[in-house]
Amino acid sequence: MERDYKNIKVIGFDADDTLWVNETYFREAEEEVGRLLSHYETPNKIDQELFKMEIKNLPTYGYGVKGFMLSMIELALELSNGKVSNEIIGKMLDLGKDMIHKPIELLDGVEEVLKSLSKKYKLIVATKGDLLDQERKLEKSQLLQYFHHIEVLSEKQEANYEKLLKHLEIKPSEFLMIGNSLKSDILPLINIGAEAIHVPFHTTWQHEEVTTKEANGEGYKTVKQLTNILELL
Amino acid sequence: MERDYKNIKVIGFDADDTLWVNETYFREAEEEVGRLLSHYETPNKIDQELFKMEIKNLPTYGYGVKGFMLSMIELALELSNGKVSNEIIGKMLDLGKDMIHKPIELLDGVEEVLKSLSKKYKLIVATKGDLLDQERKLEKSQLLQYFHHIEVLSEKQEANYEKLLKHLEIKPSEFLMIGNSLKSDILPLINIGAEAIHVPFHTTWQHEEVTTKEANGEGYKTVKQLTNILELL
Repeated sequence: MERDYKNIKVIGFDADDTLWVNETYFREAEEEVGRLLSHYETPNKIDQELFKMEIKNLPTYGYGVKGFMLSMIELALELSNGKVSNEIIGKMLDLGKDMIHKPIELLDGVEEVLKSLSKKYKLIVATKGDLLDQERKLEKSQLLQYFHHIEVLSEKQEANYEKLLKHLEIKPSEFLMIGNSLKSDILPLINIGAEAIHVPFHTTWQHEEVTTKEANGEGYKTVKQLTNILELL
Repeated sequence: MERDYKNIKVIGFDADDTLWVNETYFREAEEEVGRLLSHYETPNKIDQELFKMEIKNLPTYGYGVKGFMLSMIELALELSNGKVSNEIIGKMLDLGKDMIHKPIELLDGVEEVLKSLSKKYKLIVATKGDLLDQERKLEKSQLLQYFHHIEVLSEKQEANYEKLLKHLEIKPSEFLMIGNSLKSDILPLINIGAEAIHVPFHTTWQHEEVTTKEANGEGYKTVKQLTNILELL
């Protein structure tokens, strides 16, 4: 079915890896953890154990760099059997702080798209992760002027989006979500009767991956780059 | 001047130490840090240095338990001159996780007040700290039903409240904030022309303290306990 977007009143943009680069920095940090702990394990094993640790801690810490830092440190204690040096733990703290203070690298066409859409729609940022981090990135990005406000969701599941729509006081059919993660930005929206457009990013965190069966391509559009959205709206 | 609240449409409630106990748990954790590092310094010195570390890291980590945990660990590395044991760092991680999973202890009269006010006003939670933490606490508290939504602010300064009011699409005179912190919940509201009611809690974080001159008592009311609010609204 061809999708039209004539009922849309509010457009939600995912932030990390939709507006700006993010996952790439986590990948680099994971590689650095592999180097820091190379005395104890192979890079591959460290990478797997770090992922497991993050998932184990996700219900406690949620998304974002601070939880990642705490998981790194916990992994270091565990993999080294309590022998990791203070120096390495200190380097992990520095690594995390560097991630938090990275400059913003906007993805292609972001400003053009927001400028154009903000004239016709109410735009919001709808992101997981840490509020302070996301506000800081938005400020650095100089994109703040295009958005009505930021919504930070603790999870991006159907119930969270339903709460968001209640809060925005609009019907599902009046909301369009744009993002890079099928699992977080697209499928839950389709399931609650909202619209969604998928803009893939080259790197996806393992936790955000979906099976081909889940990503059946029904009920949403995929565009190659963000600027293609302007042809649809 | 006697304050009336006849224009009020939305009431914002601070969460920590207004709806439920929080600061008490931080105080207990600080004491535990004193014990964990007692090999290196006096409890008093550790307490002072922990506070300094938290304030130094506040622009990077923001408010909440995760930032507190990272500051604890950084302090341990620093105070011990890089000699602190893995065991102590592990205990700090456990201490932080315990804080995150503490049961909720509601303050007196909270439910009664929310039940009554939610019939006449739109109620929101307006809190600093970590979104996931605050959502979890609200869920555990079983108070969710009384609130339209949660607003997590990265800071509680005038500009943050102005953004909030823009987002709520109301005028300052239509907003009333209720909270325990003069610095965060009361004074910035008065300065932007909104209403505020102060409900003191017995313990205040040093960072939230204000001078007697700042807390001049003008432009807002102070009540002894939350239920007194029902006599005003």
